[in-house]
Amino acid sequence: MQLYSYFRSSASFRVRIALQLKGLPYDYVPVHLLKDGGQQLKPEYRALNADALVPTLVDGDHALTQSLAIVEYLDELHPQPLLLPGDALERAYVRALALEIACDIHPLNNLRVLKYLKHTLGVSEEAKDGWYRHWIEQGFAALEIALARSGRVGRFCLGDTPTLADVCLAPQVFNAQRFNVDLAPFPTVARIHEACMALPAFQNAAPKAQPDAE
Amino acid sequence: MQLYSYFRSSASFRVRIALQLKGLPYDYVPVHLLKDGGQQLKPEYRALNADALVPTLVDGDHALTQSLAIVEYLDELHPQPLLLPGDALERAYVRALALEIACDIHPLNNLRVLKYLKHTLGVSEEAKDGWYRHWIEQGFAALEIALARSGRVGRFCLGDTPTLADVCLAPQVFNAQRFNVDLAPFPTVARIHEACMALPAFQNAAPKAQPDAE
Repeated sequence: MQLYSYFRSSASFRVRIALQLKGLPYDYVPVHLLKDGGQQLKPEYRALNADALVPTLVDGDHALTQSLAIVEYLDELHPQPLLLPGDALERAYVRALALEIACDIHPLNNLRVLKYLKHTLGVSEEAKDGWYRHWIEQGFAALEIALARSGRVGRFCLGDTPTLADVCLAPQVFNAQRFNVDLAPFPTVARIHEACMALPAFQNAAPKAQPDAE
Repeated sequence: MQLYSYFRSSASFRVRIALQLKGLPYDYVPVHLLKDGGQQLKPEYRALNADALVPTLVDGDHALTQSLAIVEYLDELHPQPLLLPGDALERAYVRALALEIACDIHPLNNLRVLKYLKHTLGVSEEAKDGWYRHWIEQGFAALEIALARSGRVGRFCLGDTPTLADVCLAPQVFNAQRFNVDLAPFPTVARIHEACMALPAFQNAAPKAQPDAE
């Protein structure tokens, strides 16, 4: 398999965690989102990924896109360890947490969106950073409540083994830290992030451990 | 089951389609996103849904959130008709299309985001509408290419029966039409939308057929 990835992309980070947790070997193909006017926008990359977003996972003849769809695919083909639990209600809980991050936080803070705010809407650097932090803080506040209410939290979002929810949580906390979001109001989120980053799989998947890290 | 829904919310529309396709009865509980300063923001609703977003599906003692997680849950418990296909690669394709809409288009055009643009960033009405159309047009262009490349399109995104991808596509086209997006550059998207809206399940789930329609 080949993973088209950018070290700092949190969607790429998610897929790297899943590959690492499952011990699946892959070739790392860097796609630099800032160099050359954005390598993800080049026709060669768009031929694999019409969205012009990272990551793309190439498995044989198939180019798979959208990080959550890729992680579910890997989980179905390589179920050890399972990232989606066996019970339907627990799966719904895990997927809802993952989607809270993947739909309600991350897309608002994607590079293309920040560019639009700055270049098309003429938003100041300060207001852009405020926007970035706003959606993380609002999302983490909701996540913190959802976790507390669930009665399902252990070391990770669901008990004591990582799931798709943690695969999304850890990269989002990484983003939050980059933008100096104070995690004190989100103790459960912060504690789960620490538990994740204590695992070699998460460490190996982290931005600074990638070949294209700067 | 009770569905907390707003007639015009496309995430609610998705879940209504799934319930209708599966012939599952449910009570409709309207949550007006604009009245009373937003009924989704009231403590009573937040007690069910920490995100303060619609929809929420209550099944027995369980309040389920995030439309895609809800649809997958319904599909697992009530598999007739299946909205996720049986093959892992086809599931990855269907989920990727659904996520292209649910992550890369819809969250950017959500009410809370439009409010932030207007009230916090002071963006003009015209620029706000431009933003709305931009993400739909960019998303539909990518979707059109992904559909064409897949070799899997029939009457619907995957062959001749609706899947989770169509459950997301039809409401997003409804949104696009509300904002006068020209669908001519997206003939496959437009054609699939028409095929969807020819089905009674999609018609019964449509905004204008809801008890809170205005």
